Amino acid sequence: MANDLSVNQELYFMSLAYEEAKKAKSMGEVPIGAIIVHKNQIVGQGHNLREKDQDATAHAELIAIQEACHTLKSWRLWDCQLFVTIEPCMMCSGAIINSQLPEVYFGARDPKAGMVQSLYQLLNDRRLNHQVQVHEGLFQKEASQIMQNFFREIRARRKNIKKSKQISRNSE
Amino acid sequence: MANDLSVNQELYFMSLAYEEAKKAKSMGEVPIGAIIVHKNQIVGQGHNLREKDQDATAHAELIAIQEACHTLKSWRLWDCQLFVTIEPCMMCSGAIINSQLPEVYFGARDPKAGMVQSLYQLLNDRRLNHQVQVHEGLFQKEASQIMQNFFREIRARRKNIKKSKQISRNSE
Repeated sequence: MANDLSVNQELYFMSLAYEEAKKAKSMGEVPIGAIIVHKNQIVGQGHNLREKDQDATAHAELIAIQEACHTLKSWRLWDCQLFVTIEPCMMCSGAIINSQLPEVYFGARDPKAGMVQSLYQLLNDRRLNHQVQVHEGLFQKEASQIMQNFFREIRARRKNIKKSKQISRNSE
Repeated sequence: MANDLSVNQELYFMSLAYEEAKKAKSMGEVPIGAIIVHKNQIVGQGHNLREKDQDATAHAELIAIQEACHTLKSWRLWDCQLFVTIEPCMMCSGAIINSQLPEVYFGARDPKAGMVQSLYQLLNDRRLNHQVQVHEGLFQKEASQIMQNFFREIRARRKNIKKSKQISRNSE
């Protein structure tokens, strides 16, 4: 089992995951960020880079897990906590299981693709050789808000593009 | 939908995935291999490298998907087929969904961690925004045999180590 963290430490590490999400947003990526902590030290961090890298696997959690394995020189992320702003998808839930991460904190649920609470509870399937302690809700409002704003801006941009195409077509 | 492959092509590409599995075995890794094909051309390949890289995410399929995204300069692996010797785990099933791979061939089932048929049918959940056409059984015997031999050899090696420790302890 990982070290116990105080409420202040939990808030601090989730605030850093949120900072990672903001980095993603500033690059035009879906704003999700993740941090991995080992004995109170950050050993991995990441934000979504799918568009920039054109890599379907470049999710915040996966990048952070790969970095943490590299830092700790071990594929087993024992005594670690993962902090992520949004509920992990299937791939990232699997990477959490494969790295035997004991503890995961996530901010807001993803009702469309979340595999920890929303569609399945994959981190707590007793048939698998690893289960995860899950904490939900830290920075929920912020994590959810930055996603909503991001998609609202994308929709507005698309609408404007459509409108200006319409105008130029009408004036031809 | 991906191009239709002939039976000979399917066998050929799965034989290459099996060759990848053999590479993993020769390195002392769990022998699983994968190939990704795009319009009859190989665009990604990989074998398990978890121990060598000490990376929990270094599964054959994930490595092959990352390479295919890089080759095609796209996170969307449309018109592609993935060939893998063993039924994908949770992480790799998620990477298949995230890359919108339309078609997956796997050899043998993994009753302990397989997420395509054994524990769940995650590639065909209608609630997700992508579903996958799954083909099962090509090279099933070979894929299963190389795994069984690998784990049998590991058990035998462990038994021998234990025995020689016992002998040296008794002769002290």
